[in-house]
Amino acid sequence: MERGYLHSRFPALFFFLALLLTSPAISTKSVRRIQPCKSLVLFLHDINYNGKNAANATSATVTAAPWANRTILTPMTLFGDIVVFDDPVTLDNNLHSPPVGRAQGLYLYDSKTIFTAWFAFSLVLNSTDYKGTINLVGADPLMNLTRDISVVGGTGDFFMTRGIATLMTDATEGVVYFRLRLDIKLYECY
Amino acid sequence: MERGYLHSRFPALFFFLALLLTSPAISTKSVRRIQPCKSLVLFLHDINYNGKNAANATSATVTAAPWANRTILTPMTLFGDIVVFDDPVTLDNNLHSPPVGRAQGLYLYDSKTIFTAWFAFSLVLNSTDYKGTINLVGADPLMNLTRDISVVGGTGDFFMTRGIATLMTDATEGVVYFRLRLDIKLYECY
Amino acid sequence: MERGYLHSRFPALFFFLALLLTSPAISTKSVRRIQPCKSLVLFLHDINYNGKNAANATSATVTAAPWANRTILTPMTLFGDIVVFDDPVTLDNNLHSPPVGRAQGLYLYDSKTIFTAWFAFSLVLNSTDYKGTINLVGADPLMNLTRDISVVGGTGDFFMTRGIATLMTDATEGVVYFRLRLDIKLYECY
Repeated sequence: MERGYLHSRFPALFFFLALLLTSPAISTKSVRRIQPCKSLVLFLHDINYNGKNAANATSATVTAAPWANRTILTPMTLFGDIVVFDDPVTLDNNLHSPPVGRAQGLYLYDSKTIFTAWFAFSLVLNSTDYKGTINLVGADPLMNLTRDISVVGGTGDFFMTRGIATLMTDATEGVVYFRLRLDIKLYECY
Repeated sequence: MERGYLHSRFPALFFFLALLLTSPAISTKSVRRIQPCKSLVLFLHDINYNGKNAANATSATVTAAPWANRTILTPMTLFGDIVVFDDPVTLDNNLHSPPVGRAQGLYLYDSKTIFTAWFAFSLVLNSTDYKGTINLVGADPLMNLTRDISVVGGTGDFFMTRGIATLMTDATEGVVYFRLRLDIKLYECY
Repeated sequence: MERGYLHSRFPALFFFLALLLTSPAISTKSVRRIQPCKSLVLFLHDINYNGKNAANATSATVTAAPWANRTILTPMTLFGDIVVFDDPVTLDNNLHSPPVGRAQGLYLYDSKTIFTAWFAFSLVLNSTDYKGTINLVGADPLMNLTRDISVVGGTGDFFMTRGIATLMTDATEGVVYFRLRLDIKLYECY
C-alpha cells in the first residue's frame, strides 16, 4: 500500500515541480515580449520657432554649437542645437485635432555628418482614456524610416510602466514643422 | 483507505495549486504597487543665480529661448530656459540642515502659457543611512499641488531600483529660491 | 498507517513549500544581482571642440553658465556647461580602432567646487555582435576612480534591458580629449 501511495503521489509531484520551475519565467519575460500589455498610437506636432511664428511655435532652439551660425561647417545637421518643446499630441495626424496631451522636454541634434537627434521627454496625457505621464529617452536617427526609443517610466495610468516607442516621421514642412507618429508598446504594466 | 488517502491529500494539493498559480502575480506586481519596498522623504533646495548671489547660488540658467529676454512674449513662463543645478538635499525643510546628498542635473521650463518644468537629475546620497544614487526623469507641472515623476534607476544602496517621486513645492522666495519636497516610493528593490 | 502516511507526506510538503516560497525571489531578483545576463566593455572617445579642431571634434559645449567666461568664479569646474556629443565607441582603448557604434546625447558639468558631471545618452551599437541601443542616465563624479550610472532601457538586441554601467576615466589629454571605459552589466534581459 505504501508503494501504491508513492506510485500515485509522484506523478502529481512531478506535475507540480514542472509548473513550479517554469512558471516564474513564463509569467513575466517571454510573454511580455510577445504581447504588449498596453499599446498607444500618438502623433506629436512640432512647430519650431523661426523668429516670425511666435504665436504658433511649440518649440525653440535654445543653444547652438559654437560654430553653428558662424561657419559653414555643419549647416545641414544642426549639430549642438538643443530644442526645448511643448508639442501638442493628437490621436490622428491632424494638427488641429483636439490634443489628448502634450509632449514636453528636449531634443538635440548630435551629428556633424548626418541628420540625427536624441530625445528626452514626457508625454503628459489628459484625456478621457488616459490620465498620466510616460517618460521616454533615446536616440532618433531621423533619416531612418523607423526608430526605437525607450519608455523608462510612467505615472498615473502608466504607473511604473516600461516599453518601446517606435518613431516615424509622418510629415515635415521645411525646417519649421515636423510630425512624428509614435507607436508605443508597453511590456510592463502594473 | 485509498479513498481516504486521496481525500486527505487533495485539499493540500489544491492549497498548493492555488499558492502556485497566484504567487508569481502577487510576488511582484500587485504587492509592489500597494506597498513600496523603500520610502524616503527628502528636501531639495534650489538657489538660482541672479548675477549677485554667486557664493550661495546652487543653480544657473544656461540657455534662453531666442525671445526670452528680447520680447514680452513669455515674460512669466521662462519657456526655453535650461537650468543646471547642484542642489543640497536635506532630511527636513531647513536649508541649513546638514545635507545628506546633492541633487544634480538639469531642469527646463517648457511652456509659453503656463508655468511648467521638466526634470532629469540624480540624487547623489552620501549619509549614514544611504550611499548611492537615484536617477529621475519627468514632467513637473509646478502649479499643481503634487506632481509625479519617475525613478528610472539607481546605484549603490539603490541598485536597479524603480519607483515614483512625488514633488511638492514646499516654499518659494521670488524667483531665486525654491524648496521641493520629494516623497520617493520605490516599488522595485534588489 | 495514517500517521505513517502523514509522516511520509510532510517532508515532501515542506520541500515544496520551501521551493514555492523561495522561487519567486530567486527567479528574478537575487540571481540577477549576482550574475548579469549580459556584459559589455566599451570605450568612449570624446574630442571636445576647442575652436581649432572642427574636423576631429566629436563634442561641443553649447551653453555656458552666466559667469563661466566672464569671471574667475568657477574657472576650473565648468559649472553650467552643457556638451552635446557624438562620440565613437570602440572595443579597446584605441581611438583608431574600428568603431562598433556611437555614444550620442549630452553631458553637463554641475558643480561650483569640484569637477563633476552628469550624463544622459544612448549607445547606438551597430556591429556584427550587437545591433541596438542602450539608454543611460546618471551622475558622473569624475574625480572618483569608478562611477556607476543607470542603464534605463534599450532597443534591438537590448530590448527593454536594465542594468549598471561603471565608468572609469581611461585617459585624458588636457581639456580636449578624454576616454571613458564603460563596464556595462545588464541584469534584466528579454
